[in-house]
Amino acid sequence: MGFLKRLLNPTVDVPSAQLNDSQLESAGQPRIFFSLDRDLDLYELEELCDQVGWARRPIRKVRKAIQHSFLVVTVWEVRNDKRRRLIGFARATSDCAFNATVWDVVIHPQFQSQGLGKGLMQFIIKKLRESDISNITLFADPQVVDFYRRLGFILDPEGIKGMFWYPS
Amino acid sequence: MGFLKRLLNPTVDVPSAQLNDSQLESAGQPRIFFSLDRDLDLYELEELCDQVGWARRPIRKVRKAIQHSFLVVTVWEVRNDKRRRLIGFARATSDCAFNATVWDVVIHPQFQSQGLGKGLMQFIIKKLRESDISNITLFADPQVVDFYRRLGFILDPEGIKGMFWYPS
Repeated sequence: MGFLKRLLNPTVDVPSAQLNDSQLESAGQPRIFFSLDRDLDLYELEELCDQVGWARRPIRKVRKAIQHSFLVVTVWEVRNDKRRRLIGFARATSDCAFNATVWDVVIHPQFQSQGLGKGLMQFIIKKLRESDISNITLFADPQVVDFYRRLGFILDPEGIKGMFWYPS
Repeated sequence: MGFLKRLLNPTVDVPSAQLNDSQLESAGQPRIFFSLDRDLDLYELEELCDQVGWARRPIRKVRKAIQHSFLVVTVWEVRNDKRRRLIGFARATSDCAFNATVWDVVIHPQFQSQGLGKGLMQFIIKKLRESDISNITLFADPQVVDFYRRLGFILDPEGIKGMFWYPS
């Protein structure tokens, strides 16, 4: 997993040109791409979300959400037959100035617990920081609160609480 | 405060044409406008934020944030001399499909505790619902958690936690 080590080791500076739409390669390993390209097959994304048990959402609304997100990151595995497979996804909404909110972070179950989610989030933080956005927020399910905490996310700073409104 | 009663009473249906950029009037009272027009004097907005003790932010970034917000609502008082004064503000980022996050909710101290903040939030919820956005989120300071709770916002539903990342 040399490509992941290179990606995730904070002491190694991975040039953004390498992370952005280009391949992270390791001899004898499948290759992993991080991409900012939004032109993806939404049925493949739906399949990925199915894999982690998310409720299905109308494709037309997913398309709109991707169009209107500030940042969309996809993670791809390229196999030896050169075919690529979507194995990760995340996106962020933002005002392009102060705040961003990260949504829909997903890694294919086969690729979980290998640091790829961490790499994806570090990539997102890096991209948002490059846009001078300093307040990055998200809403974490209970089972991933510790995952985000290890990435530097803070719970309820100064008593600030995340709140939700749903139609009744 | 007839205009507020009309605005806030949930049993009275206020036509959106009336709420959107038009005046809510009551005989003998100053008139209050809700507006979706983003073309506002950012120094006047800064002055309003000063009134509630918010830290100053670069005008250029505030301009960008307003430009890239999904929804911007301003509240105006129009006095007898026809001059208008900014007395409230809020904005929301969104993916235009699933999620919206409300930021920078402010009511001038002189106009607080009169239901105007509630009216502003109900207006925002209404507008977001009209855009078929069902997940409305925000990050509430401890002293306004109950205010948002009364508006139907829920704290940590199913253990979901709001988390923040700031540059170290």
